[in-house]
Amino acid sequence: MVDIPESHPRYESLLTRHRIEDGVEHGITSQQGLIAQGRGEAFDYLLGEQTIPSADEAARVAAAELLLADHPVLSVNGNVAALVPSEIVELAEATTAEIEVNLFNRTDERIERISTHLREHGADTIKGLTADERIPGLDHERAKVDGDGIYDADVVLVPLEDGDRAEALAEMGKTELVIDLNPLSRSAETATVPIIDNIIRAVPNMTRHARELRQLPEEDVQSVIDAFDREKALASAEEAIRSGE
Amino acid sequence: MVDIPESHPRYESLLTRHRIEDGVEHGITSQQGLIAQGRGEAFDYLLGEQTIPSADEAARVAAAELLLADHPVLSVNGNVAALVPSEIVELAEATTAEIEVNLFNRTDERIERISTHLREHGADTIKGLTADERIPGLDHERAKVDGDGIYDADVVLVPLEDGDRAEALAEMGKTELVIDLNPLSRSAETATVPIIDNIIRAVPNMTRHARELRQLPEEDVQSVIDAFDREKALASAEEAIRSGE
Repeated sequence: MVDIPESHPRYESLLTRHRIEDGVEHGITSQQGLIAQGRGEAFDYLLGEQTIPSADEAARVAAAELLLADHPVLSVNGNVAALVPSEIVELAEATTAEIEVNLFNRTDERIERISTHLREHGADTIKGLTADERIPGLDHERAKVDGDGIYDADVVLVPLEDGDRAEALAEMGKTELVIDLNPLSRSAETATVPIIDNIIRAVPNMTRHARELRQLPEEDVQSVIDAFDREKALASAEEAIRSGE
Repeated sequence: MVDIPESHPRYESLLTRHRIEDGVEHGITSQQGLIAQGRGEAFDYLLGEQTIPSADEAARVAAAELLLADHPVLSVNGNVAALVPSEIVELAEATTAEIEVNLFNRTDERIERISTHLREHGADTIKGLTADERIPGLDHERAKVDGDGIYDADVVLVPLEDGDRAEALAEMGKTELVIDLNPLSRSAETATVPIIDNIIRAVPNMTRHARELRQLPEEDVQSVIDAFDREKALASAEEAIRSGE
């Protein structure tokens, strides 16, 4: 373990880098995951490595969606598990959501390793190994999900998801919450609620919002959802990246 | 080998991805190299995956600098060797420059592997293993260069170079030619000639310019250099990334 003082000006970025390297060491982060990490770094750099107001609002809306869902599921891939293992567990607890491991390059060994990693960070039940259902419109291996997990969910959080799967899940009529640093990505374009932010900041932020919102009457939580304008959120994120502000 | 038809709309991007994966397989591309590749992809995406006019001009100026140099050296790291092995050899030939392998995470084994890879792509003499001199102002391992290579060069091409080393080389008074997709990076800021372009496009483009320019009288080649405005080139690249044009 590397001990990085929180006061370090590059604390977040060093922590991220360290967790990703740790993920490679534990066979959790893939080659594609490392490249994806780099793409995220570039967009975050242009965003000023901060949570912009529209992303904070989207995180609040996403928290509201999870709280009002009948069956919310958080989909976790290699980079998510490497970057925010305990933060995902806390979000699941705050929203009574399930966690399902779902990989772009799926192998049972990697799912096992990621599940173990999440358990070491406090997770209880983890779905993803049953894989008894298929998302329509995807290749066999990419389509596999648990019948009583993502397949049955009405609201899914898919952080750092690839475009094909994000589209296929949206086609199934699910409310899709996406965390992605590229507002022009197909995942972001497809999402019901696109959160254009670094997952390292977005997941704890969602948890904070969930803990606040769950104190409120259901209609107030619903009104947070109703007030959200996804087109405006995407446009404001793109503007932030383009203007560097 | 993957056979990708040149007519494929994503030909360049697939070729890049394939070469990087190949580089990992051969122990040439590092973890940091994969993350750096992802950062480059994001900036290239925002640039529209094209060589903008100011980058084409910078490539021409860089070719002119190599042609008029007393001792031009092309510095090659893992990603450069993986992405443009034969293209670097062709540029060295067109400009009678030397090639030196210089790594951020230096080990003699990786230098050997990269040298072998370059030889398989037609390189003759490759420097980098003697490492009998040091760039002032850098940590021991990062500082190592060949005394009759980069240390002695008046003009160096440092594609995809890290900021610390780019600054230290500039401090030595060398004419520094940088290829980098981020116009705000320290390497680009430090360069005498910053080429804000994908290395896959920039290196063959420099070779093409070098073959044209070497037909001209020396004063005409010098006037290409004299007309260059680096601040304008950086500003126009940033503008292209911000505006998406």
